[in-house]
Amino acid sequence: MNQVYLTGITTTGTPHLGNYAGAIRPAIAASQQPGTEHFYFLADLHSLIKGISPEEVRQSRMEIAATWLALGLDTDKAVFYCQSDIPEIPALAWLLSCQAAKGLLNRAHAYKAVVQDNEQSGSKDPDKGISMGLFSYPVLMAADILMFKAHKVPVGKDQVQHIEMARDMAQRFNHHYGEHFVLPEAQVDTSTALLAGLDGRKMSKSYNNTVPLFAPEKKFRKLLMKIKTNSLEPGEPKDTEGSALFDIYSAFASEAEIEAVRVQYAEGIAWGEMKQFLFEHLNTLLAEPRAKYDELMNQPKLIGEVLEHGATRARSLSQPFMAELYDAVGIKPMWQ
Amino acid sequence: MNQVYLTGITTTGTPHLGNYAGAIRPAIAASQQPGTEHFYFLADLHSLIKGISPEEVRQSRMEIAATWLALGLDTDKAVFYCQSDIPEIPALAWLLSCQAAKGLLNRAHAYKAVVQDNEQSGSKDPDKGISMGLFSYPVLMAADILMFKAHKVPVGKDQVQHIEMARDMAQRFNHHYGEHFVLPEAQVDTSTALLAGLDGRKMSKSYNNTVPLFAPEKKFRKLLMKIKTNSLEPGEPKDTEGSALFDIYSAFASEAEIEAVRVQYAEGIAWGEMKQFLFEHLNTLLAEPRAKYDELMNQPKLIGEVLEHGATRARSLSQPFMAELYDAVGIKPMWQ
Repeated sequence: MNQVYLTGITTTGTPHLGNYAGAIRPAIAASQQPGTEHFYFLADLHSLIKGISPEEVRQSRMEIAATWLALGLDTDKAVFYCQSDIPEIPALAWLLSCQAAKGLLNRAHAYKAVVQDNEQSGSKDPDKGISMGLFSYPVLMAADILMFKAHKVPVGKDQVQHIEMARDMAQRFNHHYGEHFVLPEAQVDTSTALLAGLDGRKMSKSYNNTVPLFAPEKKFRKLLMKIKTNSLEPGEPKDTEGSALFDIYSAFASEAEIEAVRVQYAEGIAWGEMKQFLFEHLNTLLAEPRAKYDELMNQPKLIGEVLEHGATRARSLSQPFMAELYDAVGIKPMWQ
Repeated sequence: MNQVYLTGITTTGTPHLGNYAGAIRPAIAASQQPGTEHFYFLADLHSLIKGISPEEVRQSRMEIAATWLALGLDTDKAVFYCQSDIPEIPALAWLLSCQAAKGLLNRAHAYKAVVQDNEQSGSKDPDKGISMGLFSYPVLMAADILMFKAHKVPVGKDQVQHIEMARDMAQRFNHHYGEHFVLPEAQVDTSTALLAGLDGRKMSKSYNNTVPLFAPEKKFRKLLMKIKTNSLEPGEPKDTEGSALFDIYSAFASEAEIEAVRVQYAEGIAWGEMKQFLFEHLNTLLAEPRAKYDELMNQPKLIGEVLEHGATRARSLSQPFMAELYDAVGIKPMWQ
């Protein structure tokens, strides 16, 4: 039997080099493995927790979809869809709510972190600023996963607990109503190093240090020129360790290419030269997908068609499964 | 503009005389008022919170639908549907979750009552036995109400807080995303007295003292014969105050009929005679609807058709409204 993988992509922000190296590239590679099935979805319902504007949700959905398609996701193989196009997902979330102990959600790290912040800042209300969306988000996530009987969910370490919660809800449901759900497992890829951002810290939207993957060439170059270096002069030998430039280059180069740059560092390549070199390297690498991305962004209808195709495939599974689950809990009527 | 009323009926248990006098009869009467529109739904998703068996959900859904139809609900006028047939409702519940402060739900009476029970029984976990379904139930209820732009929600006093919560979520959503929701109002009918049960306490499933509305004639008589009385002999004058027999009779009799029985009490009617009299009175009253109920219970397909018709009418409102709401939060894609 095929192993089923499922990955959600929250629709906030514009995909950047770090997303590509850390998430998109390995996901697209994985989707080509024989014996596997892959579900990738735009988690637009989850993005609403963040309190971002409607415009940002709309724009991000579009950019993320165009990015994955431009980078070569085979949507005839992988199932690629919008979460909000699958009405069975929030319905399943309700069924799971009735199985999930509130105490389980009380122990969620993400929730507890905000409570701790509130307590440390002296707030009288430990739940200050916490919405029910934030609190119950692991239930919706469990519905995302359990709906498509995913065996493996590739996640960062911070998400492992949520997969365990999904298992817990699935087990309780199976216990009460019979075996309907596959118990998912978290797949934590520790090999993927985090990419450095413009300031040398992890590239992340929250640090405002990202390089958008498909920024127009001029802007792309300008951003790369801003990467933080030290004050070593041309000719002085430079350390690859701790160099954001080297870190970013390495994420997109072959072993041999990396070795060559290592030699250049030892020989004292000028920072400006290295920046230009990095720009040219990435620009060549991204030229083709960028052209495709621009084309897609100019033809939103094409993106829409791909996502509709994905939603149709996803619903061909979610609709009969939801009917089965409703039947299990007693909601299938006697007249059927 | 028509005033829109909405009433949910939780699908647990078999409708009894108390349900009829306290809820069904006034609701059916109200649905005939000109200038009003009425939504009645079987709250089967809510019933899952109670942890009842699939068989009980199934049976209760059927019995409740058959009861309302047998008692004359005009389903061409009122919209009569199953909650689970409207997938937009759990989807809306998610949007509202993102607006509802967790603190709001922390203050729900129903939740706090269980926490208090846990604390009093010395449990270390105040949330012991509380599911996310129980905790977040007011959000689903808000979705039920706001989806159909109800102006008035007839409820018991214990539910007034939930209507206020629905208003709160609606206001926050309107504030963030523009005016989409009607703010509902609770309509507490204080005139409807609670019906006495077999043991003299309020007739309620939880006291196990109910008389099913459409029990077969023999069983119906047997149950009425069990109504608690005192030890006064035939011929001794009897008090109507505190008499469950009198209480039940009054709920189904005209002023003149009630007056006549009051005289009988003063003249010392025997309890057995009064029981037989009550049985005959109710049996005549219920003969026709009972026949219709039995007919429907034997033709579940008919019930199914009525509820499908209701769901079609409800979805003709919920589908475009949900599309409008998704658009408002940014989920409507650029390609549409």
